[in-house]
Amino acid sequence: MRTLRVALAQINPTVGDLDGNVRKIISYIKKSKKFGAKIVAFPELAITGYPPEDLLLKSQFIKDNLTALKKIQENTFDILTVVGFVDRKDNIYNAAAIIYNKKIIDIYHKIYLPNYGVFDEHRYFQAGTRCPVYNFGDTCIGINICEDIWYPEGPARSQTLAGAELILNINASPYSIGKGNLRENMLSARASDNMVIVAYLNTVGGQDELIFDGHSIIIDQNGKVIARGKQFEEDLIVVDLDFEGVTVKRLHAPRRRHEMIKLEKTDIENINIPLRKTSGKKPTKLRLSSISCSVLEPLQEIYMALVLGTYDYVNKNGFKGVVIGFSGGVDSSLVASIAADALGKDNVNGLFMPSPFTSKESRADVYALADNIGIKVIEVPINSIYHRYLDSLKKDFRGLSPDIAEENLQARIRGNILMAFSNKFGLLVLTTGNKSEMSVGYATLYGDMAGGFAVIKDVPKTMVYELCNWRNKKEGRTLIPESIILKEPTAELKPDQKDTDTLPPYPVLDLILKAYIEDDKSFDEILSLGYEAELVRKVIKMIDKSEYKRRQAPPGIKITQRSFGKDRRFPITNKYREY
Amino acid sequence: MRTLRVALAQINPTVGDLDGNVRKIISYIKKSKKFGAKIVAFPELAITGYPPEDLLLKSQFIKDNLTALKKIQENTFDILTVVGFVDRKDNIYNAAAIIYNKKIIDIYHKIYLPNYGVFDEHRYFQAGTRCPVYNFGDTCIGINICEDIWYPEGPARSQTLAGAELILNINASPYSIGKGNLRENMLSARASDNMVIVAYLNTVGGQDELIFDGHSIIIDQNGKVIARGKQFEEDLIVVDLDFEGVTVKRLHAPRRRHEMIKLEKTDIENINIPLRKTSGKKPTKLRLSSISCSVLEPLQEIYMALVLGTYDYVNKNGFKGVVIGFSGGVDSSLVASIAADALGKDNVNGLFMPSPFTSKESRADVYALADNIGIKVIEVPINSIYHRYLDSLKKDFRGLSPDIAEENLQARIRGNILMAFSNKFGLLVLTTGNKSEMSVGYATLYGDMAGGFAVIKDVPKTMVYELCNWRNKKEGRTLIPESIILKEPTAELKPDQKDTDTLPPYPVLDLILKAYIEDDKSFDEILSLGYEAELVRKVIKMIDKSEYKRRQAPPGIKITQRSFGKDRRFPITNKYREY
Repeated sequence: MRTLRVALAQINPTVGDLDGNVRKIISYIKKSKKFGAKIVAFPELAITGYPPEDLLLKSQFIKDNLTALKKIQENTFDILTVVGFVDRKDNIYNAAAIIYNKKIIDIYHKIYLPNYGVFDEHRYFQAGTRCPVYNFGDTCIGINICEDIWYPEGPARSQTLAGAELILNINASPYSIGKGNLRENMLSARASDNMVIVAYLNTVGGQDELIFDGHSIIIDQNGKVIARGKQFEEDLIVVDLDFEGVTVKRLHAPRRRHEMIKLEKTDIENINIPLRKTSGKKPTKLRLSSISCSVLEPLQEIYMALVLGTYDYVNKNGFKGVVIGFSGGVDSSLVASIAADALGKDNVNGLFMPSPFTSKESRADVYALADNIGIKVIEVPINSIYHRYLDSLKKDFRGLSPDIAEENLQARIRGNILMAFSNKFGLLVLTTGNKSEMSVGYATLYGDMAGGFAVIKDVPKTMVYELCNWRNKKEGRTLIPESIILKEPTAELKPDQKDTDTLPPYPVLDLILKAYIEDDKSFDEILSLGYEAELVRKVIKMIDKSEYKRRQAPPGIKITQRSFGKDRRFPITNKYREY
Repeated sequence: MRTLRVALAQINPTVGDLDGNVRKIISYIKKSKKFGAKIVAFPELAITGYPPEDLLLKSQFIKDNLTALKKIQENTFDILTVVGFVDRKDNIYNAAAIIYNKKIIDIYHKIYLPNYGVFDEHRYFQAGTRCPVYNFGDTCIGINICEDIWYPEGPARSQTLAGAELILNINASPYSIGKGNLRENMLSARASDNMVIVAYLNTVGGQDELIFDGHSIIIDQNGKVIARGKQFEEDLIVVDLDFEGVTVKRLHAPRRRHEMIKLEKTDIENINIPLRKTSGKKPTKLRLSSISCSVLEPLQEIYMALVLGTYDYVNKNGFKGVVIGFSGGVDSSLVASIAADALGKDNVNGLFMPSPFTSKESRADVYALADNIGIKVIEVPINSIYHRYLDSLKKDFRGLSPDIAEENLQARIRGNILMAFSNKFGLLVLTTGNKSEMSVGYATLYGDMAGGFAVIKDVPKTMVYELCNWRNKKEGRTLIPESIILKEPTAELKPDQKDTDTLPPYPVLDLILKAYIEDDKSFDEILSLGYEAELVRKVIKMIDKSEYKRRQAPPGIKITQRSFGKDRRFPITNKYREY
C-alpha cells in the first residue's frame, strides 16, 4: 500500500468576508491536521467567496485578498494546503495557491474560464497557460480548477500524462437539478480515461441566486466513487487514498505509453515539494462518517437547496427573520415551510391580508397551515384601504370598467403592508411567486412581487405541488393542509377568479415553459411536441412581454438548468416574434 | 483625383425587429444609390439590432437573421453593401457581409470581442481570425468591426499594410460622456499612423440602458475629420473620398515599407470584387448638409441622449404615453421636460399626489412647471389613504415611534397610484430618481422607484441642476421654475425634512460617488482626496448596502462611464468592507 491521507474542506465562505473566510480556512487546516491528513484542499476562490463579481475590479479588494492569503500561509505547517484565491500578476487570475510549511510552492492559474449561463469569468480573469505537476513524497499530484476538468484534453490530461496519480480539482460549481449526476459521469470518465484518482472538491452555500451544493466526490482510477461529501452542508472529507491501484493499472495500459510519446511535453513542469520529516505523533483515527453518505432523493435534494439558499441569504445579509404574505395558496404555504425549516418557525412571520375576494376556505387554510407549522399569523385586512384608493381614483377612472388596474391595486396594498412590517421590524420579505408565474408575468410588480428574496422563483408550479407532498410525507403528518394542495389555484383578486381563466392548466403550461425557456425550442419545434398553435403563441407572447417585470423581480434560487436572472439575459426592448 | 463616393447609413434598428430592420436597410441602400454612392455601409449587427443578448442563443433567431440577410442581398445591385449580421458556421460570429450585385463577396468576422462594462460578447460569439482586403475598382478596402479598431496592432494595421486605403469600421458603440472625444482621438491616431482614410460608422438609438449616439466620423490619412454624422439622429453621410492623398503620403513614408517587410502576411487575403460597368445615369448632386454638422455642446449632448433614450424606450415598446409623479422637485421637473421634448407634451401626464407634508410652495411649483411646459396635471391626494394604512397598522405598530416605515408607506401609496394610472390607461411610468439617490439608496423601493423606465438614473444630482439651467437657457424662457432650481431638496415624507438631514451636500456627495463608483477608488484613496473619514465611511456604507434596491430598479439611460445595471455587477450578499 502506498497511501496518502487527503482532506477536502467543503466549506461555506461568504463573498467579500475575507476575514471570516480566512478564519474558517485556518480552522479547517487545524482540523485536517488533527485527522492526520497530509493534504488539505479548499474550494475555488475560497478566500473571496464565489462569485465576487465586480468586487474583482477593485484594486483594494485584490490586495486585501492577497493579504488574506498571507495569513493562511502562516498556518500551513506540516500540511500541503491548496486554496483558491485571486492572483495578481500582469493581470488577475482565478488561482490556486499550493502552500507547504509556510511557503508558497506554486500558483496554478485556471485555464478554462466559463463565460456562459451564470458565469462571467472572461469579464475578470486572464486565462492560465501552465499545468505543472507536484511531487509530494512518493505521490505525483496535478491541481486544476473547476471548468478545467470538463475538457477531456484539458489540464487533467496533460497532468496525468506527466505522471500525476491524483488530480485535485477545486470548484465553485452551482447546483441545478441533475447536475450531480452530470458531474459524476464526467468525473468518472475523466478518472478512468486517465487512470487517475480524481478528488473533486466543491464549495457549499447560497450566494444571491446561486446555491453551491457541496457534494464533493472522490473517484478512483476505475471510475468508481470512493467518497462523497454531504450535499448542502459544510463537510470535511478525509480519505486514505491508495495509489498502488493506479500504478498497477498503468502498467497494464500500453495505449497510455503510446499517448505519452505523442504528447508534446514542452510546457509540463515537474515541481518537487521538499518533504518535512513528520512528527512521530499518531494521528487521530479516521472517522469515515462523511465519506459514505449517500445521495439525497430528487425532491429532497431540491427542497434542501431551497432551504440552504434561504438560510444563507437571510443570515449572510444579517436579517433577524422573515415575513411572508399568506394567501392560503400552495405557493406561500411551501415558502412558509421552507422558511421554517431554514430559520426556525419563530423567525417566520405570516401576514394574512384578506379582501372581500378572500374565501372563507382560504382563511381557514391560512390558519391551519400556521397551526401545523407553528408560525404566528398577523392579520391586516385590506378592504378599507382598497376602498379609499377606489374613492381617490373615482374621478379619474369614471366610466371605465374595473380591470387589471383594480386587481393590481389590491396586490400592491399587500406589498406595501408587507414592506411596512419589513421596515418597522427589520424583517426580510420573502416573495412567494413560482417559476410558472414569473415566466408568463402572472404576478403584480410591487405587489406579490415585492420583497427581498424569491424563494421558489425557479420552481415550476407542478413541482411546487410535488415538494409540498414530499414535505408532508417526510414529516409523517400534514404540515401543508390537503385542502391547500387540492384546491384550484386562484389569485382571489376578483370574484370567482381562477388561474385557468388566464393560463392553461399548469401541467401543460409547465411543459411549454420548459421547452421555450430551458430548452430554447422554437415555436415550430414546440408545435411539433403536439400543442395547439394558438395556445403556444399565447404562452410565448406572455413570456416575451413579461421581461420588464422579471427585470425588477427580487433574486431567487436557481434550481433548474436555466433560471431567470444572470442565467437568462434578455432585452426588454425586443420585437422578435417567431410566431 | 481618384475618388470614391461612400455612404455611411447611420440607422436606428430595433433589437429583434428583423423585418423592420431589413426594410430600413433596403430603403437606405436605395437612397444611397440615388446619391450616386458606390459603397454603402450599415452598422454592426444592423440586421438584429444591438445587443440582441440571449436572443443569440435561439437557433431560430440566427436562422431568421440569415433569411433577413438574403432579402438584403437581393437589393444590392450596383452598390457595394456592407452590413452587420450574425454569421453561423461552426459557431456564431459577429459579422459583416460584403455584398455586391446580389452576391456575397466575403464575410468578415469580428476579431476582438469586448467582454467588459456593458459588453458580453464572449458569452455568444467565436472570434474571427481573418482580415482580408478587397480590391474594388482601383480602391483597396479593409473592413472591420467596432472593438477591432481599438487595437493599434489589430486588423486595421494588417489591412493597411496589405494595401487598404480605406478602413471601414462598423460599430454599435454606446454613448457615455466624453466618448465622442475619446473615439475621435483614437481614430485620428489610427488614420494617421496607418496613412489611411478611416470611415467610422456607428449605429444610433436607444436600447434599454444603452444609447448609441451615431456621431459617425470620417477621418483622412492625416488624422483630420472630414465628415461627421449627426449625434442622436439617423443620418446618411455621403462623401466623395479622394485617395490620391493616401498614395502621395505613402510614397513619402519610408518607415512604412520597412514595416511591410516585417509583417508576416501569411493570413492576408486579397479579394478582387469584379466591377460591374456602371450605368450612364448621372447621380443626384451630393448634398453635404450632414457631413459638416458640428458637435453638440456638452450639456446639450447629455440632454439629447436622455431625450433619445426616452423616445426610443417608449416607442419601441409600444406605449401611448407616459405618466410621471410630480413633486415640485427638480428631478421630476427635469424628467417632465425631457419627456415633453421626446414625446410631445400631450403624451406626458403629471400626477401630483400631495400629503400633509407637501408644502404650498411645492404645489405652486408643480403647477407652474406644468403650465410652462404645457402638461396636464392630475391631482390625487394621498392623505386619507395614508391614514387608513396607519389605522390598519395601529395595533401591530403600537408603542413604536414613526420611522422610515411610515415615510415609505407614503412613497409606496404614490407608487401604487402611478401604477394604477399605468394599468388603466396603458401609460409607462417614468421614475424620477437621479444617480446620487440611486447610489446611496435614498429612494423607496416600490415607491418613487416604481416605474418602467428611469430617465435620469445615471445623472448625478449636481448635473440635474446643470441640465435644468441649460434647458431653460436653450428655451430662452423659464420652463423649469427658478424656485424649483433654487429650493433646498427634500423628500417631504416627514415635517421639515431635508435631504441634507441624511446626506452630505450634493456637490460633496457627487464627488465621493464618482470616486467610488466610476473610478473604483479605495476608501484610503478617497480620504486622500481630502474628505473626512467618517463622511466617506458613511457614504460608502450607504452605497454598498443599497445594492438590493438597485437590483430591483427599472432600467435607465447610461450616460456616465459606469452606470448601474449591466455596467456594474455587484453581489447583494457581500461582506467586503474596506473601511
